[in-house]
Amino acid sequence: MLDIALVHYPVCNAKNEIIGSAVTNLDIHDLARAARTYGVASYFVVTPFADQQKLAGEIIDHWRHGYGARHNPDRREAFSIVSVCPTLDDLYAHYAAKGQKLPVTVATSARGHEKSQDFSIIRQRLLAGEHFLLLFGTASGLAPEVMAAVDVILPPVGGKEAYNHLSVRSACSIVLDRLLGVR
Amino acid sequence: MLDIALVHYPVCNAKNEIIGSAVTNLDIHDLARAARTYGVASYFVVTPFADQQKLAGEIIDHWRHGYGARHNPDRREAFSIVSVCPTLDDLYAHYAAKGQKLPVTVATSARGHEKSQDFSIIRQRLLAGEHFLLLFGTASGLAPEVMAAVDVILPPVGGKEAYNHLSVRSACSIVLDRLLGVR
Repeated sequence: MLDIALVHYPVCNAKNEIIGSAVTNLDIHDLARAARTYGVASYFVVTPFADQQKLAGEIIDHWRHGYGARHNPDRREAFSIVSVCPTLDDLYAHYAAKGQKLPVTVATSARGHEKSQDFSIIRQRLLAGEHFLLLFGTASGLAPEVMAAVDVILPPVGGKEAYNHLSVRSACSIVLDRLLGVR
Repeated sequence: MLDIALVHYPVCNAKNEIIGSAVTNLDIHDLARAARTYGVASYFVVTPFADQQKLAGEIIDHWRHGYGARHNPDRREAFSIVSVCPTLDDLYAHYAAKGQKLPVTVATSARGHEKSQDFSIIRQRLLAGEHFLLLFGTASGLAPEVMAAVDVILPPVGGKEAYNHLSVRSACSIVLDRLLGVR
């Protein structure tokens, strides 16, 4: 089983300072559609800011229960797996509160790392029934403290080029396809 | 060699009527970043509407030559491969005007098709040096006349789920990774 989280705090800006980023409408849509297409169980939008939680909640509510749900049932289905969570600690606690074991936590990175495991290994572990939680960072990526705390780091996705500046929408879609895509 | 085109006309709306869709800022950005990351040679934004060409041209100019280029050199590099083209016929004529053979034209589809070739086959043909032009449809996808005219149709991307409603940003990223990704 695979869950994903889009993390808006703590992340880095272009100067490697720790910031909280803004929730964007299209990140919620694109990741929900990709997550539902690949059979992701839950998609958590993680932001500690009350106004951002309210904005994300209103967008989600529009497509789950409001006019959006009646207008576009496919989008309603994508949004059925989306919820807002204040912090990563709250997210981890939510599994315990449901009596579940904490999933194996996974991040992606632009560099190699001693906790690296290839996509093929995580794909096999998913197939074997293990439960994973995949963290994606907005802005310039997850803060070092988050990277240090996860169980597994996936290698960077991309091609032969040295250039590698994918949007989080692209990166998440590619990672889901590598882990759960049918070829 | 691989080129891509994001087609805004002729495409289908949700009722399968032929329409021209609106250019969106984030489609230009996300596809440019993914295309540059995977070594795509040229990314064409295809729209016949003068006001949409002007809008796309201003966005591209901002990131290639304006403040955006100075502020974010990585984004400038992504935008270095982007240009606007009025129609698919103009795009095809542009190759002839440069004395080049027309690339093999490729579309993606949500269904199987007699012109279907697996990703692995196109990946090998790319590696062998063939030149391809990959067409992506906005809105609800490329018009039937475009699908009928292309040389090759790629199978749908996705997972085990019956649900398959990826954004064009997700679909393009996944297709590029399947064709040019390094694992």
